[in-house]
Amino acid sequence: MLVKGKRYKTLWLEKETVKIIDQTKLPFRFKIIKLQSLNDFCEAISNMQVRGAPLIGVTGAFGMAVSMSKDPSDSNINKSYDRLLSTRPTAVNLRWSLDLIKEKLSRVDILDRPEKAMEYAKIISDSDESACESIGDYGCEIINNLFKKKKRVINILTHCNAGWLAAIDWGTALAPIYKAARKKIPIHVWVDETRPRNQGALLTAWELKNEGVPYTIIVDNAGGHLMHEGKVDLCIVGSDRTAINGDVGNKIGTYLKALAAYDNKIPFYVALPSSTIDLKLNSGVGKIPIEERDPKELSHMYSFSNNKLTDNLIYFKNANIFNPAFDVTPAKYITKLITQHGICNASKEEILKNIKSK
Amino acid sequence: MLVKGKRYKTLWLEKETVKIIDQTKLPFRFKIIKLQSLNDFCEAISNMQVRGAPLIGVTGAFGMAVSMSKDPSDSNINKSYDRLLSTRPTAVNLRWSLDLIKEKLSRVDILDRPEKAMEYAKIISDSDESACESIGDYGCEIINNLFKKKKRVINILTHCNAGWLAAIDWGTALAPIYKAARKKIPIHVWVDETRPRNQGALLTAWELKNEGVPYTIIVDNAGGHLMHEGKVDLCIVGSDRTAINGDVGNKIGTYLKALAAYDNKIPFYVALPSSTIDLKLNSGVGKIPIEERDPKELSHMYSFSNNKLTDNLIYFKNANIFNPAFDVTPAKYITKLITQHGICNASKEEILKNIKSK
Repeated sequence: MLVKGKRYKTLWLEKETVKIIDQTKLPFRFKIIKLQSLNDFCEAISNMQVRGAPLIGVTGAFGMAVSMSKDPSDSNINKSYDRLLSTRPTAVNLRWSLDLIKEKLSRVDILDRPEKAMEYAKIISDSDESACESIGDYGCEIINNLFKKKKRVINILTHCNAGWLAAIDWGTALAPIYKAARKKIPIHVWVDETRPRNQGALLTAWELKNEGVPYTIIVDNAGGHLMHEGKVDLCIVGSDRTAINGDVGNKIGTYLKALAAYDNKIPFYVALPSSTIDLKLNSGVGKIPIEERDPKELSHMYSFSNNKLTDNLIYFKNANIFNPAFDVTPAKYITKLITQHGICNASKEEILKNIKSK
Repeated sequence: MLVKGKRYKTLWLEKETVKIIDQTKLPFRFKIIKLQSLNDFCEAISNMQVRGAPLIGVTGAFGMAVSMSKDPSDSNINKSYDRLLSTRPTAVNLRWSLDLIKEKLSRVDILDRPEKAMEYAKIISDSDESACESIGDYGCEIINNLFKKKKRVINILTHCNAGWLAAIDWGTALAPIYKAARKKIPIHVWVDETRPRNQGALLTAWELKNEGVPYTIIVDNAGGHLMHEGKVDLCIVGSDRTAINGDVGNKIGTYLKALAAYDNKIPFYVALPSSTIDLKLNSGVGKIPIEERDPKELSHMYSFSNNKLTDNLIYFKNANIFNPAFDVTPAKYITKLITQHGICNASKEEILKNIKSK
């Protein structure tokens, strides 16, 4: 997608070196960094220089590949797998891509592993990109149908950042929005700020601005009021882990928006590549492990002035803070899931059918 | 209530001069200022140096009194009334107290108005204080009953600041909490940060810390997750304007917490002095005027370091922002209302009975 008129992806190879956009500095600084060691990859994931379920999965795969180029032994496969997997406990794509590459590599001659690992990582990356584009096409139909019915600007509410910055390109929740914008369907996006890390205000708004899509930032508290006032036509969010019954683990606060949408009879869609579906998980509430993150994510805030990025204390010192990063939205509040294979109900039967249709 | 071990109120008279705590600088700076002209009072309300429905009402009354001391004419009654009323459109206590004092003054000889106006303002202030204490006593019974049943720490979630800083003393939503703490009932308070102005993290947490009540700050997004996990036993919030049918206009985001409480079968209480009940309003959704505030409340954030308070840009420049300050929670999601006259259902019949019991 576009950054100041130039096309970018979030992760790419340049002369066999992995480069990423450092997302911790966005939108204040657009910085590209190289990831050259297993440690670089682990830190990039846990420090959220890369974030978003699909991108974390792809980054994990390239982390394995780079680690294989240095030591293709069985023991290093296991070590690299464990280290990468431990970086973020909630997102399931990471496990999915690491399982996939580990299983493939175990059947490859040790001397071929460096080359093959890089090949597999590229395949995972390409397939993520095409899955996101496909989600965009399916989701765009939903927006287009609403537009044909309402014949006015369609207002879409989204939470956190499930845009191209959360994937390789296109994104998940934002892919239908980008597709609709390219088809000149008139849309406007309500962007939840998404405390504590403000990925909505910082990343989603910045993405949409760069792509020329009309948007407005609101605090996370405001969505219910907008729905009461008839100012939201549909919600689209992403997923970090989806249970087989359709329960969705996503950024903290998603559940509250789903409740408000349900109360106001507004459709609530979850856009996800099927790699976020955890086939081992029959249901989500109380079952999906919820990552607890640093209290500093609440008590401190980045600001940018005089060309300087500073991290400032915004609470009083030593305040008591609890910082769970995700919540679970029960399937009953989800209108439909949008995967790369099509649109389906958030139910076990339809999810299994959707996956099998690939 | 206590500030570093010393008792304070939010507004008091010292040698016939009105003094207030400047709440815009809290918790970083504890600053006391004098309000000496009508303009001082209007700015204190609109800049939120005083805030919270009950305190705004009392401040309006003293604003009238100070204005009368300078010009007790009929035309100045009307001018002062209009200027004070226009400072905050959502809170109804302000209109209530201004109506009351205006009506009383219209029947007083012009020469007696300065003295009488100050007398009325003191009565309004004292009655607010005793109303809040009474809310505390009624609400404390609810907490105590839950404690007797559960025999463990009772977890209470609150939104925004409806503590003593929002009133003269005690507060509304926090009054039952202070009463429970004084009776040694073991409690813990989940404090919603309350974007955009963070009154929860800045004011409620600071109040509770100063009173020695266990608390933890969470982002506004986290309440639903905590309720899913069984970590909330009840919610108590305040009200800025209550419709006769029990719909409650309160700080933006209240509605989302009420939905989550309802979904998890957790009781949701609204604590309010009866002066927030708008007898002219049959219902609240779509009817209570919702104040839109400065987008800077989202895009900028105060921070305190090196003994300096700075206002920093936290979004990219010129981001599109919408900032509604309140939302309306439908009566059906409210378990009970707690007023100074007792506890009642959020219904027209019970509200009218509750008011008449005074």
